[in-house]
Amino acid sequence: MDYAGRISKLASKLDDEGILAALITAPENIHYLTGAPFVRGSAGKLLLVWKEGHATLILTELDYEEAKDSVAGGLELIKTNLFERPLERLRSILPSSSKVGYEEGAMSAAMNDRIGANYVLVPLGGAIEKMREIKDKEEISMIEKAQSINDQAFEKALANFREGMTELEIAAELEYMIRRYGGEAYAFETIVASGPRGVYPHGMPSNRRPSGGESVVIDFGAKYGGYCSDMTRTVFFGEPKPELRKMYEAVRDAQEAAIEEVSIGVTGKELDDVARRVIGDHGYGKYFVHGLGHGVGIDIHEAPTVSASNPNPLSPGNVITIEPGVYVPGVGGVRIEDLLVVTEGGRRNLTKFSREIVVV
Amino acid sequence: MDYAGRISKLASKLDDEGILAALITAPENIHYLTGAPFVRGSAGKLLLVWKEGHATLILTELDYEEAKDSVAGGLELIKTNLFERPLERLRSILPSSSKVGYEEGAMSAAMNDRIGANYVLVPLGGAIEKMREIKDKEEISMIEKAQSINDQAFEKALANFREGMTELEIAAELEYMIRRYGGEAYAFETIVASGPRGVYPHGMPSNRRPSGGESVVIDFGAKYGGYCSDMTRTVFFGEPKPELRKMYEAVRDAQEAAIEEVSIGVTGKELDDVARRVIGDHGYGKYFVHGLGHGVGIDIHEAPTVSASNPNPLSPGNVITIEPGVYVPGVGGVRIEDLLVVTEGGRRNLTKFSREIVVV
Repeated sequence: MDYAGRISKLASKLDDEGILAALITAPENIHYLTGAPFVRGSAGKLLLVWKEGHATLILTELDYEEAKDSVAGGLELIKTNLFERPLERLRSILPSSSKVGYEEGAMSAAMNDRIGANYVLVPLGGAIEKMREIKDKEEISMIEKAQSINDQAFEKALANFREGMTELEIAAELEYMIRRYGGEAYAFETIVASGPRGVYPHGMPSNRRPSGGESVVIDFGAKYGGYCSDMTRTVFFGEPKPELRKMYEAVRDAQEAAIEEVSIGVTGKELDDVARRVIGDHGYGKYFVHGLGHGVGIDIHEAPTVSASNPNPLSPGNVITIEPGVYVPGVGGVRIEDLLVVTEGGRRNLTKFSREIVVV
Repeated sequence: MDYAGRISKLASKLDDEGILAALITAPENIHYLTGAPFVRGSAGKLLLVWKEGHATLILTELDYEEAKDSVAGGLELIKTNLFERPLERLRSILPSSSKVGYEEGAMSAAMNDRIGANYVLVPLGGAIEKMREIKDKEEISMIEKAQSINDQAFEKALANFREGMTELEIAAELEYMIRRYGGEAYAFETIVASGPRGVYPHGMPSNRRPSGGESVVIDFGAKYGGYCSDMTRTVFFGEPKPELRKMYEAVRDAQEAAIEEVSIGVTGKELDDVARRVIGDHGYGKYFVHGLGHGVGIDIHEAPTVSASNPNPLSPGNVITIEPGVYVPGVGGVRIEDLLVVTEGGRRNLTKFSREIVVV
């Protein structure tokens, strides 16, 4: 990955604004800029990117060996000892009263208060998130591989789905295959929501056993090379009831219509409008209770969002999901999600699995 | 769960301090106070706990159905629509200029700036985290169940471990069993780190195939009823080399010595000292590069910490890990971790799996 290029791009922005260094606290952004691994929810690493174009990573002994073996050359590593926090070490290397960029969305109010006492803090305004919106070839190939793990795992797992299984057992089969095909982690907590639970868009798998034509929303993702994938299919355990079939067709038509429109220059809002109109025409408008999609990369949810709140045009290298859904209380849920790259030619769909109705 | 009791405990604290309402932003704390589910990394829900003792949860349409079916009675639910953020709705129900408690560690600097313009913000100082340190019977039974899933899953998976398997395949077997025994999610990303990778305390599983007596550190956890468990065992693929056996004995002796000392009144620092002394006596002091343990509950890492930085005595109802580790570059890693409840009588070890050396 082009860590040096990323660091120098950020550094030149700092230089323009007279900022001595940017203090990076979001683990995902530290990973993006250096290759340093992180575990979800991890804290404790601090990255300084200096306006001159070099960078310093302050980390604990616990993380040192893995970081040392993972980061690109040229990065300075400072290892704190067990009785010292990275934040304390910061003071000894960053002159007080200097102008320091900070991540206002990733730094807690408490840390902000503490650091603000010593430095002139300047918000970075999502500068790194902005860079991350446009994926380069190497990043896209990681996401593509992560999505191919999803496709293969789903196909294999589906062959093992049987009426009488619980949602937990469905998750077990699927996740087993994700690991077997090389998923180094799950991109997020697998969702399996059947029957009336299908109206929980984030429903965790339970002991419920779908049957009698109920829908089962299965939303899952693998990580590969530090990058996420994201895919949803809704399958039926038994021949679907007419209402569920109508919902499925509404969602599938909406997804296909929106995917057709993905191209450079179209906005997130416009895509969301397309899908919402189709679902509305099918009579399910009020049951489409979330945005159409989101960007995917190191984070499972990152910019650009594909919803009414995004008036900005898409660019080549954006990687986004298109995932309309319909959730009717008492009936169930249907969601179908593909993962796409925005390209010069329009789009490339990384999801290969069919969106035809599948009956287990 | 005693949601009403928790809300009223927090409310009376607010009343004492002349705070109109506490604005709760940490999803784990919202779950603790209301039962509302959350997915890891989720955002968007806001909880107001009013000094009079009632509470209001503002959430999106997306989360509404599941929250409605999950929360305890008496909680007011406010559903925002697709084009409105919970934060915008806040203003219409919380009188401006009022004194509002906030979570300084869980609120971003950006949100703090926005809200601080309208209210007099008072830091809550970790009040809810403090409440969460002491688990009640119902919470302990969830954690105990989550740990029994770990024990059973590990025993079953171990029977399927074979030389020639990759770290990813080891994770696949284990996670499959966690699901089969009822794990509703993984408490964190499973760690499988073999051979020289064993020196990465957070090493994600890779394509590496342990063999020739190498150690394999396996650190994993299930969630049940919203509560986490946490367990580590180090197994050997082939008869362990003498150096690794010595490391294993150092860690096991340290863990047993520390567990013996767990009781009401002992501090996190004292326990850490006990383990560190034993490992030091075995000659591996400089390779024990992390604290001895941490609290476990709704979060995988919560208070109280069991390390040099905790001078406070343990209390009945604390749930903690004891997990010394030794990581020798070029040789490998060893870590053994049990999960304990602090009781009137001293401790109860929730981890049943043996800590004798296991050779695959």
